Amino acid sequence: MSFNIIGKKIPKKDAPFKVTGQALYIDDVELPGMLYGKILYSKYPHARILHIDTSKAEKLPGVKAVITAKDFPPHFRIGFMKDNPPLKGTKVLSTRDEIAAVCAISPEIAEEALDLISVEYEVLQGIFDPLVAMREDAPILHEEVGSNILKLPWRLVCGDVEKAKKESAYVVEDTFTTQWVTHCCLATSGCVAYFDVNNNLTMYSNTQIPSLAQNEFLEALTALGLRNRRVRIIQVTIGGGFGSKLDTYPYEYIAILLALKTRKPVKIVFSRDEEFFATSPRQCTITKISQGCDRDGRLTFREVEMILDNGAYTSWGATTPSVMMMPISSLYRVPNVKYTATCVYTNNTYCQAMRGYGNPQATFAIESSLDHLAEESGIDPYDLRIINANEPGEITPQGFRVTTCGLKECIEEVAKRLNWKEKRGRGLKKRGVGIASLIHVGGGARVYKSDGCGTIIKMDDFGKVDVFTGASDIGQGADTVIAQIVAEELGVPVEDVNVIHNDTDICPWDVGVHASRTTFVAGNSALFAAKKIKKKLLEILSKLLEVPPEDVAIKNGIAFSKSDPQKSIPLARALRRIHFTTGGSMLMAEHFYDPQNENLNKEFRGNLSAAYAYGTHGVEVEVDTETGKVKILKYVAAHDVGRAINPLLLEGQIYGGVLQGIGYALSEKMIYDNGYLKNGNFLDYKILTVRDVPPVEIVIIETNEEAGPFGAKGIGEPGLVPTAPAIANAIYDAVGVRIRDLPITPEKVLKALKEKNKG
Amino acid sequence: MSFNIIGKKIPKKDAPFKVTGQALYIDDVELPGMLYGKILYSKYPHARILHIDTSKAEKLPGVKAVITAKDFPPHFRIGFMKDNPPLKGTKVLSTRDEIAAVCAISPEIAEEALDLISVEYEVLQGIFDPLVAMREDAPILHEEVGSNILKLPWRLVCGDVEKAKKESAYVVEDTFTTQWVTHCCLATSGCVAYFDVNNNLTMYSNTQIPSLAQNEFLEALTALGLRNRRVRIIQVTIGGGFGSKLDTYPYEYIAILLALKTRKPVKIVFSRDEEFFATSPRQCTITKISQGCDRDGRLTFREVEMILDNGAYTSWGATTPSVMMMPISSLYRVPNVKYTATCVYTNNTYCQAMRGYGNPQATFAIESSLDHLAEESGIDPYDLRIINANEPGEITPQGFRVTTCGLKECIEEVAKRLNWKEKRGRGLKKRGVGIASLIHVGGGARVYKSDGCGTIIKMDDFGKVDVFTGASDIGQGADTVIAQIVAEELGVPVEDVNVIHNDTDICPWDVGVHASRTTFVAGNSALFAAKKIKKKLLEILSKLLEVPPEDVAIKNGIAFSKSDPQKSIPLARALRRIHFTTGGSMLMAEHFYDPQNENLNKEFRGNLSAAYAYGTHGVEVEVDTETGKVKILKYVAAHDVGRAINPLLLEGQIYGGVLQGIGYALSEKMIYDNGYLKNGNFLDYKILTVRDVPPVEIVIIETNEEAGPFGAKGIGEPGLVPTAPAIANAIYDAVGVRIRDLPITPEKVLKALKEKNKG
Repeated sequence: MSFNIIGKKIPKKDAPFKVTGQALYIDDVELPGMLYGKILYSKYPHARILHIDTSKAEKLPGVKAVITAKDFPPHFRIGFMKDNPPLKGTKVLSTRDEIAAVCAISPEIAEEALDLISVEYEVLQGIFDPLVAMREDAPILHEEVGSNILKLPWRLVCGDVEKAKKESAYVVEDTFTTQWVTHCCLATSGCVAYFDVNNNLTMYSNTQIPSLAQNEFLEALTALGLRNRRVRIIQVTIGGGFGSKLDTYPYEYIAILLALKTRKPVKIVFSRDEEFFATSPRQCTITKISQGCDRDGRLTFREVEMILDNGAYTSWGATTPSVMMMPISSLYRVPNVKYTATCVYTNNTYCQAMRGYGNPQATFAIESSLDHLAEESGIDPYDLRIINANEPGEITPQGFRVTTCGLKECIEEVAKRLNWKEKRGRGLKKRGVGIASLIHVGGGARVYKSDGCGTIIKMDDFGKVDVFTGASDIGQGADTVIAQIVAEELGVPVEDVNVIHNDTDICPWDVGVHASRTTFVAGNSALFAAKKIKKKLLEILSKLLEVPPEDVAIKNGIAFSKSDPQKSIPLARALRRIHFTTGGSMLMAEHFYDPQNENLNKEFRGNLSAAYAYGTHGVEVEVDTETGKVKILKYVAAHDVGRAINPLLLEGQIYGGVLQGIGYALSEKMIYDNGYLKNGNFLDYKILTVRDVPPVEIVIIETNEEAGPFGAKGIGEPGLVPTAPAIANAIYDAVGVRIRDLPITPEKVLKALKEKNKG
Repeated sequence: MSFNIIGKKIPKKDAPFKVTGQALYIDDVELPGMLYGKILYSKYPHARILHIDTSKAEKLPGVKAVITAKDFPPHFRIGFMKDNPPLKGTKVLSTRDEIAAVCAISPEIAEEALDLISVEYEVLQGIFDPLVAMREDAPILHEEVGSNILKLPWRLVCGDVEKAKKESAYVVEDTFTTQWVTHCCLATSGCVAYFDVNNNLTMYSNTQIPSLAQNEFLEALTALGLRNRRVRIIQVTIGGGFGSKLDTYPYEYIAILLALKTRKPVKIVFSRDEEFFATSPRQCTITKISQGCDRDGRLTFREVEMILDNGAYTSWGATTPSVMMMPISSLYRVPNVKYTATCVYTNNTYCQAMRGYGNPQATFAIESSLDHLAEESGIDPYDLRIINANEPGEITPQGFRVTTCGLKECIEEVAKRLNWKEKRGRGLKKRGVGIASLIHVGGGARVYKSDGCGTIIKMDDFGKVDVFTGASDIGQGADTVIAQIVAEELGVPVEDVNVIHNDTDICPWDVGVHASRTTFVAGNSALFAAKKIKKKLLEILSKLLEVPPEDVAIKNGIAFSKSDPQKSIPLARALRRIHFTTGGSMLMAEHFYDPQNENLNKEFRGNLSAAYAYGTHGVEVEVDTETGKVKILKYVAAHDVGRAINPLLLEGQIYGGVLQGIGYALSEKMIYDNGYLKNGNFLDYKILTVRDVPPVEIVIIETNEEAGPFGAKGIGEPGLVPTAPAIANAIYDAVGVRIRDLPITPEKVLKALKEKNKG
């Protein structure tokens, strides 16, 4: 295929707005008469609330409302298991528990009012370890649930693992643990809630899920006695999402209630402090994994038992096992699979979606264990992976129908660039190489009943195009990719395509930005809408140029006859011709696209995604055995992306993913001490800075996925999935120690080296 | 036909927002960093500008920019004849001429800065009378034009007037004059102009013509060197239009230039003062009219010669003769017609569109003259009108194809309600009755190359509907009417339809709100889009209910089988069923409607509108012969509206029109004294107040226009068209004096009574 715009490195459409400060972030939203909301959080991770006295706060001049749990309907709860009251009235279960909220004419007065609220607690013993929480004698945190173990059905069984284990030539077993890490969005979370005279709600928000949030808030309005109302979500510029805004939070319901009480717009924007402790991180996991292979290195089984620290309440974190099943069942060909996951309430922070949605945790276990198996079986880790690599046409045990699959090419390309055969297993200069691969959804993921996205397109008299998309641009460049897709199809310059994505009143429904689905799903939606316009255009142009429609081409806003390019007309002129006449028309089209993928059934089988993304990362490290410090000398990330719509943005996604993955592997960790976050700031939380950035080589493998827009698959998340195991494997190759607990800090490496030397 | 929602008196959707102050008017728009612009107007109606010194103003702290003519491209002009530079550099031609403009951090500083600008003038002799301006020896105001008479082609000739005049049994000739009146919008004019980092312009505006203004501003950007840019018009709540915002004004270009110079949002909102003198009123006319009839009262010819005071520059006022032709050629059956109009530059204010667009001036002459002819021929004015009334199926001399026409019924109904036969010609108690009729465009008016309007509709999972319309709601209730049309077609409650009309990025193209076209054109556009949705809906519901599509009905959001109403499903549930499934869909549709009407050809013939509105007003007055004061005892307005979509709003339109018409007839006048407006405030400008409001009886005649949405025709303007002649005719009937010069003030009545008594 030859393209005009697809495949071009086009800078992000929103970049000029962001660098000049013209982009409107939630903090920039100012409405007439707006009030500022602030939240009082719990002093203790576990306590009974005996009494709340808000009287002093209410009397503070400038304070317009103070609310506590009693202002919400008694049984109103939010979250995946509806276990989270937006304000806690009788008991707190974590230090991020919301107890009261205030709104005032200035943020300073609101803050001052919080200090005037006195809360009497009866402190209870906290449980901060899921293994402790699972004990029979552990105090129950949610009495209404009756157990600290969540009633969630995470259990996947394919084939006969027991039998396969017995028949395997080689078997390994390991336990891996991962930490809490947070999204570190540079713009903090926030909203402005506002009721109009009809009691319809407008929410300015940086949500990643405008359509689903709309639904949740509608339910909240119903609970508040406002039936059959409208909710409008106006999505402002989002300064980072990474999954952190995939669920609604108590602060949003608090803002809604404050707005309803005061009849004024109420803004709540998190401080950096709150962004660290009151948003929901990636959940920490304890993973016991066993894998085996036959004499030829063919994988025979994979068995995984996982425990997840659910924290005090339940958000999407508890559902990540549904995605972890994907690599467990389908990364490399493995005929027998067993996976169980247990989510456990503790008095820790509760967890949410984060880029990769469980996949990094699972892949860390799988790919670390695979290297262990390679060692056990005496097969080169590269060869073991090539032997078992997925291939196009395959149907995995979980029922994924693999269409395109460039996994082998990714492994080969990474090994080549790492100079694998030369470097592997030498341990020279304490240097080593490691690789790890990934599978991820690349064609949407039917986790909700709809995986769809709608698009409306209209063209004006100047050939300019407005595209209303359900998609959300959270910084990944969705607007630019959608503009390219539409521009390619219509033959107009990409600058002439304006993408509107920010308003539920205007934009069609979309399930939200997650699962690396936007390029695939929103891209297809835009493409199909554009095709409808194109069809009309070709008919019109065919008449104007007096040639058959199939002879008409459009490029750069000029339509011409392919067979006789002298015959041409500017698109804008053609559009005016059909517009400015009796019975005239203007070109508009709409399309709702929902991919051909499936909800997993009760046994968690089904073709979750319409296409799958693959990739392999390879890394060469040098370990300082004096300090335990790991230095990355070379990093290669090869990804099967179907088609690179915009290599610039695509590389940006991979690059950003890799860096986030390196932070996950080596340095990032939210340190909780008995329920209190100890490093909730950018000084103590070790996100990578520009000084920590290693060279990253990106390899794009194009497999031209038939179901994707111009052949593309999703690439938003994969970049961080195999990073940690690739690094862990390289460290093992360098100095012979395997770190099974993330992050791989110098302290852990040193300790392991010491133990190894002892042994 | 039976309707659920059409024909219901549904309150305006925007009313709650307006009465609670939640509606966003232009004055309410506040953007970060916004500056305030102010304009310096000419001190003299006619002068050469020798020198402008802005240096002191520039130095005033808080002033961010000062601009004069030299900041615009040298030949940049605006307006219908491109004769109006937004800032005047060498010569001023009226006291509203803009000479310089300032923007500053507050309106007060901007105002202060204006005082610091010194302008040196050479005062020239002003011309304030078009008859004087037409003289050969008059100084030429626009040297580049070479004449004070505009080169405009207003000349309509149908049949042979000279011959007909000779053959007529009765002939009358009169000269009528009309005054300047202004729109008196309660929200003054204004805009906020803002350039983004890509040099694309956003204009918050209360324009009536978002799509055309967008085009004009694009041209301005091109002139300013910004090629191929985007202009986005965000239409705020409009506090009255009446045609005053049908053209762009210099202040808008001034705001644009100030915004470009400062890179900040610049707001210019008129003071009430400016609203009076710097917006463009209804043009004043001198009309010589002659009509004749045969012995049976059948009209034989109508000859009209008109002179219009064009003022200093040319806006739409100069084009009103194109609409005046309509009543002149087609109000009552008249076979021979001749009409010429001359627009003349003077040093007065320049004129614009105002409700009726010339029709009130023409109809005042026609209907006053007709009563004269009735007297001359001895035929009762009622009978004369019935004899000549238009009828369905008629094609008028100008080529109008009359489809529905309830004129006869209107005349009869008014006469009946006035008790015409009893009251007419008695002069008892100085009371008299008068009637006058109207024809107006009722199915759009192709004055521009497109008369179209686009609509996009989407439905959500709750059965709620968003309608993006090109139409503008300027207070007439377009949103409500469009919501009713869509709700009727889709079978949903009208509250569930949200109409979005305020943004050129979002809403499809529309030629603007004028010519009483919105209900007809935008209504049809919305209806056709809704029909597309309905078709899809019926297919879906047919499957779900297991009945044929033609057996499905939807009412109040519930779909059911007509033959077996037990079979039913809430619409919302049906929508969710088709949405929440693999390959699911959501309902959206778009339609661009352009009516089957014609641009007038060079001889001004053609079927200007797809339907015509008719009406008759009747009035009983009492004249105080001591004071000359006219009291309206009874007022009846009968209108053929095709179909009353919403009788409440429709009556509001007629009621408002009648009151504006009574003001026009009896009290309103902009008093200009040698180019200076003397009564530019609500104390001295005699608009009707609540104390002046007479009882108005409204009669709705429904003729079910096939081309209209559910049978409707336009009714925005007709309400004021025949008011003045009906009153003038009644005064004549009461006291025997005919006032030919509007407004009919007590002074004029007294003077006429005195002259009559002398005579």
